[in-house]
Amino acid sequence: MEHTPSKDILNGNTADVYFMRTLDILKAEGINPVVTMELFPNRHGVLCGVNEALGLLKTVLPASDSEVWALEEGEAMESKEVILRIKAPYQSFALYETALCGMLAHGSGWATAARACVEAAGNIPVISFGARHVHPNVAAIMDYSAIIGGCKACSSILGAVMTQTAPSGTMPHSLILVMGDTVRATIAFDKHIPESIGRVALVDTFKDEAEESLRVAEALGKRLGSIRLDTPAERGGVTVDLVKEVRARLDLAGYNWVKIFVSGGLDVERIKLFISAGAPVDGFGVGSFISGARPIDFTADIHEIDGRPIAKRGRIPGVTKNPRLKRVL
Amino acid sequence: MEHTPSKDILNGNTADVYFMRTLDILKAEGINPVVTMELFPNRHGVLCGVNEALGLLKTVLPASDSEVWALEEGEAMESKEVILRIKAPYQSFALYETALCGMLAHGSGWATAARACVEAAGNIPVISFGARHVHPNVAAIMDYSAIIGGCKACSSILGAVMTQTAPSGTMPHSLILVMGDTVRATIAFDKHIPESIGRVALVDTFKDEAEESLRVAEALGKRLGSIRLDTPAERGGVTVDLVKEVRARLDLAGYNWVKIFVSGGLDVERIKLFISAGAPVDGFGVGSFISGARPIDFTADIHEIDGRPIAKRGRIPGVTKNPRLKRVL
Amino acid sequence: MEHTPSKDILNGNTADVYFMRTLDILKAEGINPVVTMELFPNRHGVLCGVNEALGLLKTVLPASDSEVWALEEGEAMESKEVILRIKAPYQSFALYETALCGMLAHGSGWATAARACVEAAGNIPVISFGARHVHPNVAAIMDYSAIIGGCKACSSILGAVMTQTAPSGTMPHSLILVMGDTVRATIAFDKHIPESIGRVALVDTFKDEAEESLRVAEALGKRLGSIRLDTPAERGGVTVDLVKEVRARLDLAGYNWVKIFVSGGLDVERIKLFISAGAPVDGFGVGSFISGARPIDFTADIHEIDGRPIAKRGRIPGVTKNPRLKRVL
Amino acid sequence: MEHTPSKDILNGNTADVYFMRTLDILKAEGINPVVTMELFPNRHGVLCGVNEALGLLKTVLPASDSEVWALEEGEAMESKEVILRIKAPYQSFALYETALCGMLAHGSGWATAARACVEAAGNIPVISFGARHVHPNVAAIMDYSAIIGGCKACSSILGAVMTQTAPSGTMPHSLILVMGDTVRATIAFDKHIPESIGRVALVDTFKDEAEESLRVAEALGKRLGSIRLDTPAERGGVTVDLVKEVRARLDLAGYNWVKIFVSGGLDVERIKLFISAGAPVDGFGVGSFISGARPIDFTADIHEIDGRPIAKRGRIPGVTKNPRLKRVL
Amino acid sequence: MEHTPSKDILNGNTADVYFMRTLDILKAEGINPVVTMELFPNRHGVLCGVNEALGLLKTVLPASDSEVWALEEGEAMESKEVILRIKAPYQSFALYETALCGMLAHGSGWATAARACVEAAGNIPVISFGARHVHPNVAAIMDYSAIIGGCKACSSILGAVMTQTAPSGTMPHSLILVMGDTVRATIAFDKHIPESIGRVALVDTFKDEAEESLRVAEALGKRLGSIRLDTPAERGGVTVDLVKEVRARLDLAGYNWVKIFVSGGLDVERIKLFISAGAPVDGFGVGSFISGARPIDFTADIHEIDGRPIAKRGRIPGVTKNPRLKRVL
Amino acid sequence: MEHTPSKDILNGNTADVYFMRTLDILKAEGINPVVTMELFPNRHGVLCGVNEALGLLKTVLPASDSEVWALEEGEAMESKEVILRIKAPYQSFALYETALCGMLAHGSGWATAARACVEAAGNIPVISFGARHVHPNVAAIMDYSAIIGGCKACSSILGAVMTQTAPSGTMPHSLILVMGDTVRATIAFDKHIPESIGRVALVDTFKDEAEESLRVAEALGKRLGSIRLDTPAERGGVTVDLVKEVRARLDLAGYNWVKIFVSGGLDVERIKLFISAGAPVDGFGVGSFISGARPIDFTADIHEIDGRPIAKRGRIPGVTKNPRLKRVL
Repeated sequence: MEHTPSKDILNGNTADVYFMRTLDILKAEGINPVVTMELFPNRHGVLCGVNEALGLLKTVLPASDSEVWALEEGEAMESKEVILRIKAPYQSFALYETALCGMLAHGSGWATAARACVEAAGNIPVISFGARHVHPNVAAIMDYSAIIGGCKACSSILGAVMTQTAPSGTMPHSLILVMGDTVRATIAFDKHIPESIGRVALVDTFKDEAEESLRVAEALGKRLGSIRLDTPAERGGVTVDLVKEVRARLDLAGYNWVKIFVSGGLDVERIKLFISAGAPVDGFGVGSFISGARPIDFTADIHEIDGRPIAKRGRIPGVTKNPRLKRVL
Repeated sequence: MEHTPSKDILNGNTADVYFMRTLDILKAEGINPVVTMELFPNRHGVLCGVNEALGLLKTVLPASDSEVWALEEGEAMESKEVILRIKAPYQSFALYETALCGMLAHGSGWATAARACVEAAGNIPVISFGARHVHPNVAAIMDYSAIIGGCKACSSILGAVMTQTAPSGTMPHSLILVMGDTVRATIAFDKHIPESIGRVALVDTFKDEAEESLRVAEALGKRLGSIRLDTPAERGGVTVDLVKEVRARLDLAGYNWVKIFVSGGLDVERIKLFISAGAPVDGFGVGSFISGARPIDFTADIHEIDGRPIAKRGRIPGVTKNPRLKRVL
Repeated sequence: MEHTPSKDILNGNTADVYFMRTLDILKAEGINPVVTMELFPNRHGVLCGVNEALGLLKTVLPASDSEVWALEEGEAMESKEVILRIKAPYQSFALYETALCGMLAHGSGWATAARACVEAAGNIPVISFGARHVHPNVAAIMDYSAIIGGCKACSSILGAVMTQTAPSGTMPHSLILVMGDTVRATIAFDKHIPESIGRVALVDTFKDEAEESLRVAEALGKRLGSIRLDTPAERGGVTVDLVKEVRARLDLAGYNWVKIFVSGGLDVERIKLFISAGAPVDGFGVGSFISGARPIDFTADIHEIDGRPIAKRGRIPGVTKNPRLKRVL
Repeated sequence: MEHTPSKDILNGNTADVYFMRTLDILKAEGINPVVTMELFPNRHGVLCGVNEALGLLKTVLPASDSEVWALEEGEAMESKEVILRIKAPYQSFALYETALCGMLAHGSGWATAARACVEAAGNIPVISFGARHVHPNVAAIMDYSAIIGGCKACSSILGAVMTQTAPSGTMPHSLILVMGDTVRATIAFDKHIPESIGRVALVDTFKDEAEESLRVAEALGKRLGSIRLDTPAERGGVTVDLVKEVRARLDLAGYNWVKIFVSGGLDVERIKLFISAGAPVDGFGVGSFISGARPIDFTADIHEIDGRPIAKRGRIPGVTKNPRLKRVL
Repeated sequence: MEHTPSKDILNGNTADVYFMRTLDILKAEGINPVVTMELFPNRHGVLCGVNEALGLLKTVLPASDSEVWALEEGEAMESKEVILRIKAPYQSFALYETALCGMLAHGSGWATAARACVEAAGNIPVISFGARHVHPNVAAIMDYSAIIGGCKACSSILGAVMTQTAPSGTMPHSLILVMGDTVRATIAFDKHIPESIGRVALVDTFKDEAEESLRVAEALGKRLGSIRLDTPAERGGVTVDLVKEVRARLDLAGYNWVKIFVSGGLDVERIKLFISAGAPVDGFGVGSFISGARPIDFTADIHEIDGRPIAKRGRIPGVTKNPRLKRVL
Repeated sequence: MEHTPSKDILNGNTADVYFMRTLDILKAEGINPVVTMELFPNRHGVLCGVNEALGLLKTVLPASDSEVWALEEGEAMESKEVILRIKAPYQSFALYETALCGMLAHGSGWATAARACVEAAGNIPVISFGARHVHPNVAAIMDYSAIIGGCKACSSILGAVMTQTAPSGTMPHSLILVMGDTVRATIAFDKHIPESIGRVALVDTFKDEAEESLRVAEALGKRLGSIRLDTPAERGGVTVDLVKEVRARLDLAGYNWVKIFVSGGLDVERIKLFISAGAPVDGFGVGSFISGARPIDFTADIHEIDGRPIAKRGRIPGVTKNPRLKRVL
């Protein structure tokens, strides 16, 4: 998809104020050399946000005198590896260092956490459920990043639009509470929601999860796709044994087509635990482990000015070699 | 200031898709009870984002049949303490649970981290420098939250606008690199930038910090406000002893009015180290410790429906007492 | 109560064989001095088993030339503190060192573990439930020791007889499984079991604990004394929040007289957790933490022979002073 | 050997009282289905006590309508592996769940600890010396379990009878103290004790162990089988170097046939230390590491009633497959 | 006492070669400013070696134009505290920086370790026994430093001469081995060694320590001053209980005037253990804990040249204030 | 080289006083058997000091009736391995046990630490710089030991003489401070110091290390051999990145022949860090890690007297086999 920069980004409102001042000074002094700037992350992970960054650069860099080299969205990157190199007249992009770093930082943090879950889960799909744990201004970008990291779907509507996926989600506890009974809510869902959307019953609201699973399976029969286990921590959370028991009781009652979806406090360690214990899970819903992932800080360094190698103390002057970079502008 | 919800939030695009479906089902079934929902954080901290949440609720709740109770922006909150209670017809706000939780989660995470730095720093001001480490869509909200948490200023222009503070920042290494010399860059800054903005020279770009500090002090004399130490990790970072030495050398040369501002990899532990060692720091610039703070997850639970106590398994039915809550709508 | 030694103990069958041989040699050599032997534990704890030990000594020591000094059953003892001193012709008791140490070791181990639970539980009664985790030959002695340690009751019939307490217990899961429903089992219990025995319903067999609690309360009304929570580890065990929720739901439905009894994997740490979190528990059932307690090893040392101080290498010759000892024989 | 249940076990006196009540209720209600119960341990180890359990079941189960499946005494078992399955009319065995679990728990705990020592000791025999650290009611069963676990002999007379082994033991410190000299005691032992029993001199009572070893070797010559080192902790315990030194001094003096037996505070780690350091030990005497081993808790679960799969919450309904089980009744 | 520098020190042979070259260059260039040099340790401790350092400075500094300020031998010093300040024409002392630092480093390391033992031992005297663990060239200086640190005596003859104390020592194991018996060796010692020297018998060579103690006490009676326990690690070392037992056995036999001296692997932790356990020790002999103490590194920095403050990077220019310094030259 | 014992060693002044007394007693009693004494270290390492020990033995042992067996200087030795065996009339060497152990202890401690650095550094040379951290009486012996351990050179003049190496060293900070500028000092060095000695400029005194490196390279051109980085801890010490950056900046400016020498707080871990990170270091200068190494304690035991095996308690009587020993006297 196309990432187009917002007005606030373009006019520099989201920038650190000192870049605005730097631009004022350089213009007043009439200084505008061709500068080579390199960006690198402070830890290894999955690169995400580079498409949005390129969208911004495309808009602001002059057609001539500009080169941009980058890794691709979703590629693995090493700590300190240069993943973006910009060579252009400095006044054209001085104002955007803050935004460029920020896009990469947040996106790569989310994609990296998602990738770790996806790898832990092996063949079992992981869905991003964390929209509720980040500000709505970035909820869709978080879900986009999670899908870049390998998630099969996400719960936010705008995230699904950005990634051209079907938004994923079952029903909230509130629907069941408001309707007063899990079976009643599931039947209403089945009645009013288009056929194309899977019937997934949430089974921990009122009754024992195993008992409720059997009740909804009996009510919907072959129309029931999955049940979702989301037992809260106050009740011990979803355990490996609970999944095995619900699977066994569903099978014993003949409902072997009903899948089991697990959510609630999942992280890489918990997913690994389910996998290594052989719990018959058909899907994992991961929330704040992905959405709350720490951004990966990026640094932007000048390495050449008008063709001369230069660097601040602590860095190596001159262009840093990285054969993985491809010219994109 | 006024927080007005964006179009994407209002039309439900940033919501988890299952709330949209829930709304469809309830409308189809004609169910719309008055529901009491309570929100609480999963760990203690500083509440932030509640003003934005109230801005959204004001827009969507019906004038009658609605009550909202809340703690105030910036107040301390305990883990699991109810900080927002909404009593209203359920269809009016069902769609906004995702956004409400997200606003509180991100804002409170940032404000809590900022508060920890501010408390560690005692009387010495802390400035939020982390805009470059978050997506530009939330950079200003991050800086707003940092200031709610106690920071004296922030570096993003929009964050400064939101908080009606003067944006803070010195000069980037890139200005010095492009101009080729720290003294030259500082003189240009002094020449072109309004008097109202303090002259802060960044002194670790080309030469030894102590040597460069004396050079810029000699060049600007009484017009120099501060120097900023930002030594990179590759060179050992800013140490307690470096601050003491630069202070001593400045004083020995007669520049006792020049303040010392420290930045680079600061966190609560590092700030405490500077304070306990008696380093003569006049200001701390904190970046990713605040901007990369983990959001504080919030949970929204239904506790009453049409006046009857109810709750899902694991939660206590009925309204939760909290005398600190004040009615705000 | 009176502890009388069994035939196997009296004829030396339970002794280490070398004591039998020692007796043979001493008799053959005609050696039988008056020996002072002292027993001490290798760690601090609660003394238990001394009454049984005295029962044995009373039976075997000659009326004249014998003195026995001891602490009392249930007293605290320090590591290495002499808690029993025997002065008598050596042939009369040489054969019983193994049995005397063993009675004290096992009994004191159990009583010490029980005391730790009782102290952690404060005012809330602790019941010994561990008979199933020790050999039936010592189940009653284990329960006796638990009560010496401070437990209010025990579950084994013979343990209750030994301690002249009412045996305590609710109903096993097997009764409910065999009868097919918790309510049905509880009603049958109420119908056939004497009035003097409290009605305690076990509520985690088939349905959600909170739901089942309300069902049995509705069925028995004021006749229901308590419910017991014994949720298995596979379902997350009994949590603090589960107790609070069941209490709240019972109270909300008007069953405030129904007490809550907790069991399942309890130890000192878990009991402290319930207490410190303010969980409304009315009784704790402790099993293998008490019954599986490590015995406290006792050592028996000779310190005088015919009035002369003596000791093996590593020990101090002569009688060890301990003003807490009282002469009992 | 044959394990016959005691009267207290058979009449239910050692049972948890609620099984007695369960039996009363079921009889009153006329309920007696054929129930399949399975027993499994909560950790892996060596199964012991199953012969005694089968002895009890043989006595109480009806000839028809009963099946029992089990692993064999001494077999390794996994955590949660079903090691005993009983299918019979429930009233016939309801009363014995406590006793069955207790026999298995204590026996398997002891056998498992013994096995660990035996494996650590490699080819060097391990003797069970812990009778003095358990109640005399179970001392023989403890020694029986130790031998099932791999010990070559035990010190209690009754334990030796149960296992048809020769009871093992040297002489106590008390014999030496009463006789006043190690050499004198050893000569008396040699004079009065049958030839078939090995002469093992305990050498740490009065003098340096090396000096005493040479004295007893000189006194008994070829009649001396072994010396036993049992240095108390107050004197640093038996060290690897002490064993090597005593061996060297014995050999230097020509007593190379005298074996060295080590005891005192031995556990798996200490045995491994002696083995890995090449200490010339000819036998290990292990006491409280085996006798104080924590029982292995067993759980008994109903999985079928009259052929229908059933289970309490947290367990899987239906018979658990285990091809290692053999039908024994 | 007077410390006079050796010829090798005075002619610069023990110096780092670059100081010799520095002197050559400065002489060739005719540069010889008055320089203020300060020395400080890199950790806190007890200052020792300063008298020897002053002896060297007295020899080499010119009478005029020189000032020396110092703390006193044996004073406590803080980490980084200036403990010696030299102001003199630089050529006069440039060559001795290596030697001055070295004298202070080794001496202060030993004195600091000794002080820690002395403080742990409270009223009980500590003797320095470590001469055998350092090169004989510094054995006497090590013992001198130990006495500055608080030891009451030392074992090396030259160390005793330097400190004007009586050299301390009992007898080596070799005397006893060569004479074949502890009692015989002790009697020979008593016969040939002057009355003024205490009779201390070493009692762990051939026999059990308690037995040997009684034998030498019987042989020398009131002439025996002490016994020394030095049990090797192979036999478990000297334990608290061994000291208590030997004391008890000596007292029981009427030899209450005989003192107990402990040595062998002592360090601060072991001394504290003896003290806190109330072991009746009358003296501690400490070897490699003192003699093997890590030297305390000292740094020598120039802070003024011809009255102008100066310092290398990382240090503060100008004289460092320390009111504890006293002018000594 | 020849190690000849000093007068103080020969006349016994550095001995523990009890050896002097032992000699007095043995002479008075006329006892002088041929004794076999063995020395072994208490931990593994590199043997050093044995040549000096042999020098002493050669001087004192009688020509006949004496044998000495030893490992060679610089050989690896195991913990408790006999590395020196002396068989001679006891009076001839009784007085020297203290000195012999001390020579081996200190020397082997230093050589062992040096070997560890040398092994960590691989092909890169290590220079001993620690003379300033030990007493000048042993500075040369420390440097000798470091070279036995594998160092390529040392800084003390006398150490270089002992090892027939060229003393190594650059220039001290004090030369630069006194001359006021690094370039001026380096030029003076180049002017006055013989051609045969390498020009190594110390570059952290006044200016940024990278800047200063370029200045001295420009001043001396091809005559400059190396620069030395010795950044103090107050400025973050020498980091891997600093070395890489200085290398890159030197190369970029065309000074690729200039080597980089690193010093300051180096130990095995730091050296490994530089090596594993690929820092382009050409030499390591190690100070207190080598010079402050703990001496390796040696024990001297008598194992034979006049051909009869003997030993004190805790040791094995008779000569200990060690085929690695070679007869040297």
